Amino acid sequence: VIDVEAANGRTIADIGEFALIRAVTALLPTAAHVQVGPGDDAAVIAAPDGRVVATTDVLVENVHFRRDWSSAYDIGRKAAAQNLADLAAMGSRPRTLLLAFAAPGTLPVSWATDLARGFAAEAARAGAVVAGGDMARSDAIVLSVTALGDLEGRPPVLRSGARPGDVVVLAGTTGSSAAGLALLTSGTPALVDVFADLVALHGAPVPSYDAALALAIAGATSMIDTSDGLSSELCHLADASGVALQIHPLFPGVRLMQAATALSADPREWLLDGGEDHAFLATVPPEVVDELGRWALPIGVVAEGSGVTMAGELISPAGWDHFGGRSDAEGRP
Amino acid sequence: VIDVEAANGRTIADIGEFALIRAVTALLPTAAHVQVGPGDDAAVIAAPDGRVVATTDVLVENVHFRRDWSSAYDIGRKAAAQNLADLAAMGSRPRTLLLAFAAPGTLPVSWATDLARGFAAEAARAGAVVAGGDMARSDAIVLSVTALGDLEGRPPVLRSGARPGDVVVLAGTTGSSAAGLALLTSGTPALVDVFADLVALHGAPVPSYDAALALAIAGATSMIDTSDGLSSELCHLADASGVALQIHPLFPGVRLMQAATALSADPREWLLDGGEDHAFLATVPPEVVDELGRWALPIGVVAEGSGVTMAGELISPAGWDHFGGRSDAEGRP
Repeated sequence: VIDVEAANGRTIADIGEFALIRAVTALLPTAAHVQVGPGDDAAVIAAPDGRVVATTDVLVENVHFRRDWSSAYDIGRKAAAQNLADLAAMGSRPRTLLLAFAAPGTLPVSWATDLARGFAAEAARAGAVVAGGDMARSDAIVLSVTALGDLEGRPPVLRSGARPGDVVVLAGTTGSSAAGLALLTSGTPALVDVFADLVALHGAPVPSYDAALALAIAGATSMIDTSDGLSSELCHLADASGVALQIHPLFPGVRLMQAATALSADPREWLLDGGEDHAFLATVPPEVVDELGRWALPIGVVAEGSGVTMAGELISPAGWDHFGGRSDAEGRP
Repeated sequence: VIDVEAANGRTIADIGEFALIRAVTALLPTAAHVQVGPGDDAAVIAAPDGRVVATTDVLVENVHFRRDWSSAYDIGRKAAAQNLADLAAMGSRPRTLLLAFAAPGTLPVSWATDLARGFAAEAARAGAVVAGGDMARSDAIVLSVTALGDLEGRPPVLRSGARPGDVVVLAGTTGSSAAGLALLTSGTPALVDVFADLVALHGAPVPSYDAALALAIAGATSMIDTSDGLSSELCHLADASGVALQIHPLFPGVRLMQAATALSADPREWLLDGGEDHAFLATVPPEVVDELGRWALPIGVVAEGSGVTMAGELISPAGWDHFGGRSDAEGRP
């Protein structure tokens, strides 16, 4: 195994694909459920439940992350987190990640190994390990992540299961990542420092996988992770379940207000429309709300009908369309 | 669902991410083992064996494929094939694919739907379906594929299981894809037409998944797919198994000889070092070789020791290093 530290200052083209794979693999812990790990044609992973939950996301440099804004470590954390959050939003326990990585040959070895460290650290936070991957050459860095989870005998928690009478709950933050992005794009380095906490949450979200699992175990009837923004995900959930969601008034907290004041921005827009927080939005039967107090905040109720209202006012989705920018009515599912 | 034909001439930015996802999803058949398909946070896939075999590959425009050389349909076929081949090389039956797709907004909708059609067609050839994916924006097209397979109660066929006395067999072609690439890069359109069969095999390989499964079921002790070239994969197999491989003399066939003559190229280099054929190289106990005649050709024997010889002459690996070009001794595992 190559000495990663001794590779400092060298590029991935200098050491070559096979040495890089060895260096990265050496950084990654494994686990008993990975019966065959990196190094063969494919991995073999235990699926004791008889089902596997699977999701994939692709992250492209200068679209989903910027090397001058985020460290390799944080980009690795973020890439893992957004896939692990998708697993948890199905009520499944994250177990296994695959990482396909494309980069220019001029990339420093240390960047790639820092990425792997961040990726593995977030995986560990969710109780998952890396079982395989792929490496290729490209002009822009591309990360493609696949995550596999275990339902542990439970039914999957779909977007379509919300029933009138259920309580809408939210586990995690909303608007922080958007505020962090606004701070980064403001061109004011002093603000980036003052609001380092919000900038960090844009660099890599910190989803509470345990909260999502607690919601699933308590009998959540539907769940989704807020990758596209709260208003957009509320509308997804209402549409998929064929119900109306009546959301209580939500207000930006002190920290979002501070950042919004500093930037002369609208904190409510971050709160409702900001993406990439990877909080968990769920509906639960009313009788379990009390026991979930440590995991999630009740923010509304499910009713017959359709559409989403907040304090009686109709909310329209304002999520991100990856090809066309802000989505319009035509472009929505 | 959008009328895909009516979208002719429109770009993916014109119709937006959600409409594109709907259009592509509508083209894809499903199957009973996909318990939750596209549209939720993740897919839920039956794993009746209690294990799942998983592999991922990333393909980057102008590195792994060129839009002016290959049709979208063939690029889809190729992206599916190389992942399905990895599953089959483990002795598992391909069941499920996930496709993450990043592209510029200017891409015609028809290109994306043709890609999906080719991807689904190759999946169907292997008995697999598409269960989910992701779409994102990028300057160059990037495809990232994850494939999941079922071992059906069998042990996985690893690279490390070859035993002295086993017979080395090959199922599929070797050198055809490299010849096709050489023809495409020759700058002679007439040759591309004359050797359309070889060019087509570079555009998309046609692995015999059934042959790989037949080898596994017959008790293959090791298997690998020849993505990096025959010599390279022979060396991988010998190294991983801690054995020597004694390969009989192999000769380029008539078609490779014709193409090599036309290009003044060395057909033996294609045969030994050409990648992307995705044939299956395996070792099997001698007593089953006869029954495997319709699936695979015996090309050598496994012996005590190390290294690979052909007709007594040492073969060194000459596979492709994705960052540094041809790999050297230092760069190999």
